Parts: sequence; structure tokens; C-alpha cells
Amino acid sequence: FLKYIDENRMIRKGDRVLMAVSGGIDSMVMAYLFTRSGSETGIAHCNFCLRGKESDKDEELVRKFAAGHGIPFFSKRFDTKVYAKNNKISIQMAARELRYGFFGEIMKKHGYNSTAIAHNLNDNIETLLINLTRGTGITGLTGMRPAGNNIIRPMLFATREAIENYCRKNKIRYREDKSNAETKYMRNKIRHLVIPVLRDINPSIEHTLNETAERLSGVNEIVSVFIDRLRGEIQTEREDNIILNVNLLRLYLDNPGILYELTKPFGITSPLLKDLKNIIAGRTGGKVLTDTHRIMKNRNELIISPHRCRD
Amino acid sequence: FLKYIDENRMIRKGDRVLMAVSGGIDSMVMAYLFTRSGSETGIAHCNFCLRGKESDKDEELVRKFAAGHGIPFFSKRFDTKVYAKNNKISIQMAARELRYGFFGEIMKKHGYNSTAIAHNLNDNIETLLINLTRGTGITGLTGMRPAGNNIIRPMLFATREAIENYCRKNKIRYREDKSNAETKYMRNKIRHLVIPVLRDINPSIEHTLNETAERLSGVNEIVSVFIDRLRGEIQTEREDNIILNVNLLRLYLDNPGILYELTKPFGITSPLLKDLKNIIAGRTGGKVLTDTHRIMKNRNELIISPHRCRD
Repeated sequence: FLKYIDENRMIRKGDRVLMAVSGGIDSMVMAYLFTRSGSETGIAHCNFCLRGKESDKDEELVRKFAAGHGIPFFSKRFDTKVYAKNNKISIQMAARELRYGFFGEIMKKHGYNSTAIAHNLNDNIETLLINLTRGTGITGLTGMRPAGNNIIRPMLFATREAIENYCRKNKIRYREDKSNAETKYMRNKIRHLVIPVLRDINPSIEHTLNETAERLSGVNEIVSVFIDRLRGEIQTEREDNIILNVNLLRLYLDNPGILYELTKPFGITSPLLKDLKNIIAGRTGGKVLTDTHRIMKNRNELIISPHRCRD
Repeated sequence: FLKYIDENRMIRKGDRVLMAVSGGIDSMVMAYLFTRSGSETGIAHCNFCLRGKESDKDEELVRKFAAGHGIPFFSKRFDTKVYAKNNKISIQMAARELRYGFFGEIMKKHGYNSTAIAHNLNDNIETLLINLTRGTGITGLTGMRPAGNNIIRPMLFATREAIENYCRKNKIRYREDKSNAETKYMRNKIRHLVIPVLRDINPSIEHTLNETAERLSGVNEIVSVFIDRLRGEIQTEREDNIILNVNLLRLYLDNPGILYELTKPFGITSPLLKDLKNIIAGRTGGKVLTDTHRIMKNRNELIISPHRCRD
């Protein structure tokens, strides 16, 4: 199990890694593993002050761990509720923004190359199933990437079970993570009610879902390369308008997937796609109004302009 | 509800539609709806002889319905078990092959334009979740298409509940479908254990999953168009070998998704992808052996030849 960390390591020699450590089992095991790997690390802890004394005890545990292993320790207290209210976002989103902002700051100021987040394999597939249920589209189904944007997820190859075993064996101290009731609620439903049923159909469900996520991720890459290229061929700008070449567009009339991806930025939704097809195939003067744009056909062009007046 | 059938109809004027009617609720409701639509139809019923008298009673019900409405009736008895054994396939696959073979025959002989299958919206998302669980990759996640290959699925827009209501209201006779224990088993687990939990997270789960399937279907289209094009640019043939242009291939080194799709036909699997990348980036003489092909680098070319000797 330990080998995973090494085999899949996303760290170059000499890299300094900032570990995001909440005090929960995943991040404590990650921190422990890093101390044994000889990498140069630091620990960042966010205290979101959402659970009073509990939050402070988490911070204390992590602080002691860092001191005990001689690892630089950075922590910050946030008034998450106020931040969420001021920015009109959910507590969850607020914590997310504050967290990544803090990590970025430390990385820059103290010269770390990347931040290590302790998501495990189960987190990954639970997130996939939650996203599938909520309908976030293909980007929500591609899973978390092991590395990218200076974020590394060295625990993504370990199941929750493996982490628990390792933790027990090495007597690593951690604190139960009780954050975020809403996510927990959905996550627990998926974890305790859905995944066991799926495992009954396919015993290696984690592995299968993970592979599917990887494949979808590959597919997603292809789509963006393809659409970017096509946009380069078909799309020009004139004054404030975007012009699409109808003759080229017409080649994709039988391909709703392509038309949709191309015109999504202009507010085209699935129900509007049919109207769009009609005006592409039809005469000069045809029009589609989306929530954000006006699309008009003029001879060989589709002229797309943003709405000027909206209420 | 009835409007769906009309709005989404996949039937051109004058089309003759062969309805596949098992005697179950979905297909009986479909047959009833068609009788009210004025379309010219026929009914095909397959008796797979898997449940003795029960199978015969199904056939009898459908035959009477056809006679009562003056619709041409075609039925055939199959020795499904023997066919499965002879062809070394599952009973399920055997029934599938026999069924579609039979429909094709009748269409040809009696001049029908398409066969209507009574899959409903719930079948569609159940299949999607089963495929996700079993890991059939993206093609398994695109759902069934409403129309294609002379098959139409006019009931795909109705939920099971809507069909049940309509059936009650119009007192349509049907017989409980008890076929295929294995599929039933998985399907029931998904239906009764998984979907209710997902619905708890998202009340309009059917709608959401259906949209996701449609989007993935669009994405899938894009990928095949893209890969076909790319293959046209990169790939040539010489004698029995396939030649890939390394200079062009190299542009996609950072795009495992694209490399994978391009080289999948040559037996490249995810674990082998890394080796392949190494030889693309490396020197003349590098080699990868897959289960089906030998891939060798020679200067600016990747020479791909099928294995000649396998044991």
C-alpha cells in the first residue's frame, strides 16, 4: 500500500510540498507518510471556527504533530460564516475559497511547489456518484485529478479501508472529522446506502468507477481540443458580434452534440438546439433568442450578439 | 402524456411500424397507443419458450389483442436454451439475437420501415446505472437512443409510473413480465435500493440522469468524429502494417485520452499507455507488445503489426 505513494508520486526532486492537514484520518495519515518519505514539507491548517472548541482541538492536534516532527506549521482562523454571508455563497463554498486562498498565499510566501490534499479513492467515487445524481454534466464525472494546478492528491490511490488499517497499525492520532453536515448527509447516503448495493453487483466497484472516471476525463480532454479547433475554423469576430460560418456549421447539423458544445457559450440549451438547427438549415432572417444572446441568420453567417438590455 | 408519442415521433408519414410486443405492460400500452394514432402497424411476438405455459399465455394475450384490433400478427417459437448452448452465449444474449433476427426478417419480408421497442424512461436510467456499475465505459453511459438502426423507442419519454397510470385508466390488459432472473435481479436492486436514495438527493433524478446520458451521447459523437479525423492525418498503411506518424503523434503526448483512443484498436490498455508514451518520446528501436499487436518505433514512424503467432 505504501508503495502507491511512491509509484504515483507527483513530486519532483527538490520539490517542497505544503500538506493540507485538517486533523482527520486521511490528512494525518498523509502527513505521517510524508514524514517517512524524506520530502521537504510544511503543514497548513485552516481553522474555520465552525465548531467552537472542536475546531480548536483539531488545530491543536495538528500543531503538536508538526512540532513533534519538526515541520513548519502554518495556521489561520477564518470567520467562515461572515465570509459566506458577505459573498452570498454557501458555507461550503466559503470554506473552499478561504482554504485555497490561504494555501496559495503560503506557497508563494514560503516557496512551496505544491499543496498536497488528502482525498482518498472513496472520496473520489463518492463525489462522482454525487455529481451524477445532481447532474453536473461530464466535467463532474471525471473525478478528481491526482495532480494539476499545483495541487497534488497523493492519497487518491488508497481506499478508505486501507487508510484505516494503516492508521491503526502505525497508531497515528487523528480526530473525527465532523465538518459540513450537508455534504456529509449526501456523502453518507451514497457511502452507506448506494455503494454497498453497487458492490453487490460488482465487487470491485471502486476500481471500476475510478477507471470510468479516468476514461471520461480522457474523453473530456478530446472534446475540448476538438471544439477549440472547430471554433477556430468556424468562428470570427466583428465589432461586438461573433460570426459563425453557416456553410461549415451545416456539416454538423446531424451532430447535436457538436452543435451544443459550440453554441453553449451563447446560451443555447438542449430545448433551443432544435430552433437553432432550423435557422441554420433555413433562410436568412431566422432568429433564436437565448437568455444571454441573440442569434440571427444573415445569408452565410450566424450573427451572435449579447443582449444589451436585461432586467 | 400522450402528446409525447406525437411530439417525439420518429415515424415519417406512410411509415409502416412493426411493434415488438411481449405482453408486458410497456409493450401493451405502446400497442394501444399506436392503435389510437392511426399508424399502419404490425405486431411481432417472440415466444422464447423459457417459462412453459406462462410463455404461451403471453403469446395468446398478444395474439388476441392483435386480432381484436385487426393488426397483422407475427409470432415465432424459439428454442432459446439450445441456441444459447450451441452458440456459447448467455440465455439473455441468445434471446436478444433471436429477437432482432426475427424482427429484421419480418420487416424485410412484409415491408415494415422500423421496429418499435417499448423501453421506458426508467429502463433507460436503470440501464445507465447498471452499466456504470459494471464499467462498460462511456458507450454504456449514453443511454438508449430514441431512434436508430430502424429501431424506434417511442416510450422512452414516459416514466414507468406514467405508463402504469395510463394503463389503469384505459384498462389495458397485460401480463406481468417475469423474464430473465439475472437482469431482473440487478435491475431490481438498482430500482428499489439505489434510485430511491438518489431521488432523495435529487427529486428529479430521472430527468437529470436522462440529460446526462444525452450529453454523454453528444460527447461520444464528438470523440468519434475527432478520432476518425486524427486517424486520417496520422495513420497510413504499408503492406500488412499500420504506420503512425510520430511527429504528429508527439503533439498529443500530454493528452493520454487521445493517445488511448487512437491506439486502443492495437491493444493498448491504460497500463501500457505509459510505455507507449516512452517509445514515442524516445529513440528508434523502442517496442511495445500488446495482446494483439507489436508496436515498434523506427525513426519518424510507429510501425504496428498484428501478432502472427499466438498460442
